Amino acid sequence: METQNIDHIGVVVENIDKAIKFYTTMLGMKLVHREDLLDRGIKVAFLTGTHGETAVELLEPINHEDMNNTVAKFLKTKGPGLHHLAVKVENIEKSLKELESNGLQLVDKVPRPGARGHLVAFIHPKSVMGVLLELVQPHE
Amino acid sequence: METQNIDHIGVVVENIDKAIKFYTTMLGMKLVHREDLLDRGIKVAFLTGTHGETAVELLEPINHEDMNNTVAKFLKTKGPGLHHLAVKVENIEKSLKELESNGLQLVDKVPRPGARGHLVAFIHPKSVMGVLLELVQPHE
Repeated sequence: METQNIDHIGVVVENIDKAIKFYTTMLGMKLVHREDLLDRGIKVAFLTGTHGETAVELLEPINHEDMNNTVAKFLKTKGPGLHHLAVKVENIEKSLKELESNGLQLVDKVPRPGARGHLVAFIHPKSVMGVLLELVQPHE
Repeated sequence: METQNIDHIGVVVENIDKAIKFYTTMLGMKLVHREDLLDRGIKVAFLTGTHGETAVELLEPINHEDMNNTVAKFLKTKGPGLHHLAVKVENIEKSLKELESNGLQLVDKVPRPGARGHLVAFIHPKSVMGVLLELVQPHE
């Protein structure tokens, strides 16, 4: 596969409203997108610098007590902080097949709709030296 | 302060040579810079996608047993994985003063030379909702 660029960095937070306020007022970033992903049980917000496309994606679980939700579980066990690295690819199905044939453990064998209508798929951190990796193919 | 863009994501690895090979061959990223930071006791490598400036910075401690080294300690206690988020700013001294006056806990009160000859300073994760934040002012 070919990584086109770093799409975003996922950061788990306790309270997305407070976090958006912190990132915008304290760090001077701009909010570019906000969405509740009901099927994933999370609220997300994307922020970028004044230049550059790579974003920070803030993630807060909708139900903090749902330990079947990976983000809620992450927050409860590790606390808030860096969660995943997302890279942009041109053809996500081709990239997934290539990674799988190279022996990497896929979390999603088939791409699914993620935030911003993009197609996404996660690769298990065991196969990426401890990094939860997300592939993103932008919505046309 | 104003975040211009996401400069890089720091990722701690067990073996930087193996990691570079993985990121270039498996994820299709390109190696843009490599350096040993002897004063920090770490080896670093910067990789980007085929487009876009935001990099992944791989970090490996030179001495894995030196528990005074924060990267070696991170690796020993948490294992390899996402380590810090670095944002580019235009004026690092001004940004640090502003963050300090807003009550954030600075790791570096004064900017110091980091990788690639850039000026850098770290902000404590306690003050950034669990994220170790690095400010980077590019070398002129």
